[in-house]
Amino acid sequence: MKEARYFYVPNAANETELPAEEAVHAMRVLRLKEGDEMYLMDGEGYFYQAEVALATPKKCIYTIKQTLKQKPVWHGRIHLAIAPTKDMGRMEWMAEKATEVGFDEISFLDCKFSERKTLRIDRIEKIVISAVKQSRKGWKPAVNPMMPFHTFIENCSNAGQKFICHCYPEILREDFFTVINNVSHAISSPSDSQKSSDNKPSVGDDITVLVGPEGDFSIDEVRFALEHGFESVTLGNSRLRTETAGLSAVMMSQLARRV
Amino acid sequence: MKEARYFYVPNAANETELPAEEAVHAMRVLRLKEGDEMYLMDGEGYFYQAEVALATPKKCIYTIKQTLKQKPVWHGRIHLAIAPTKDMGRMEWMAEKATEVGFDEISFLDCKFSERKTLRIDRIEKIVISAVKQSRKGWKPAVNPMMPFHTFIENCSNAGQKFICHCYPEILREDFFTVINNVSHAISSPSDSQKSSDNKPSVGDDITVLVGPEGDFSIDEVRFALEHGFESVTLGNSRLRTETAGLSAVMMSQLARRV
Repeated sequence: MKEARYFYVPNAANETELPAEEAVHAMRVLRLKEGDEMYLMDGEGYFYQAEVALATPKKCIYTIKQTLKQKPVWHGRIHLAIAPTKDMGRMEWMAEKATEVGFDEISFLDCKFSERKTLRIDRIEKIVISAVKQSRKGWKPAVNPMMPFHTFIENCSNAGQKFICHCYPEILREDFFTVINNVSHAISSPSDSQKSSDNKPSVGDDITVLVGPEGDFSIDEVRFALEHGFESVTLGNSRLRTETAGLSAVMMSQLARRV
Repeated sequence: MKEARYFYVPNAANETELPAEEAVHAMRVLRLKEGDEMYLMDGEGYFYQAEVALATPKKCIYTIKQTLKQKPVWHGRIHLAIAPTKDMGRMEWMAEKATEVGFDEISFLDCKFSERKTLRIDRIEKIVISAVKQSRKGWKPAVNPMMPFHTFIENCSNAGQKFICHCYPEILREDFFTVINNVSHAISSPSDSQKSSDNKPSVGDDITVLVGPEGDFSIDEVRFALEHGFESVTLGNSRLRTETAGLSAVMMSQLARRV
């Protein structure tokens, strides 16, 4: 059986041809011909069964045959904000894995102890899109540019819960997975049953979680976040590298919010 | 503050010098001198605070000052058996991350649809040791050589629960995380309270979980495992790559069994 071919086409319903890079892949690598079936993903909750209408070496015009609305497989939005690691490969790896596991948004923080002050967002975006296709996600996670820690905190007006993971024993830390599970149980009580589970986002379930650089957040950064409504948490007993902490936070959020 | 230096020294209590590779690192990279403090990890539940007694360019003789018994941070043994991916880097990455998160044993399976039939166990072992040191684990996960799928199944006499993850919709699959959590609740009932929580392994809590190759297990392999006491499970709604599935299984086990 031929593996179905998936292409990422933002705004696919209003377009008629594959974006340049996808077209080259479709024509030169997969050698699609007129009449061949393919699937388009718009990254915003829709897949489309489509057919190649016209194929040239660099262009691929399509006709949509069927619209396939996707169902969310988790509640609310999962947003990870992380200080990128010195080794860029570790961040790219994490972006791929977090996309496979399932999350909604990634932001990069410039912190006091950050070892990396710049980041190629276009590379992260590419990796995320590739993982969206590979793991057939209905929604493409948003990839935000790097910003100063304080700017992020001051502008984070998420109506859901906000958390900062850190390692300072002198600041009381609750267990992240326990806290988000308690919230999850609360929101699934009968009185909330009118909440639609197939329309994202369902604001009360939203999670924003912050993970610091190799040298952790500064204690002043932690305090600043707490003053701005973030909760102080730990990811557990394990001493994790930054990228592993980021993925763990996403996996825990995913387990707590899955449908 | 100087970061404490950790060295992996199997059987450290009965030895008097660092293994060759660790000695070179201690002498040439860290330039330790007589009287310097260091920590030894034996990978079997003990750390030792030690001091450099004699330092030559290639040798490092130590004296143990204090024995530090480690406490397990999860119940029972977590054993992942996985078909290695074609891309060896993906397996190495997973071995590192699973060690950081925390598990006890990894086995590699040669399956019908395996894309990789050989594996450099020495490389995996090296990565695991490095992650044990980096994440300060009390116990070093065992790394087993590759073996045929059927041999593994027939010789897996784990007294805990055994699971096979697969994607065949025609075979009923329970949710892995739900099942292992139910067992966890059961074993923590008052009648079991005499169970010691600081002596590993606590057999009833043991988890063995199988993850297949890129093309999944064959359906015959799944049936063979079920006939040998394995339970049929899914890791959830996400379409995961082999190495992501392996790490997810370890993370879920860790969450369900943490102290």
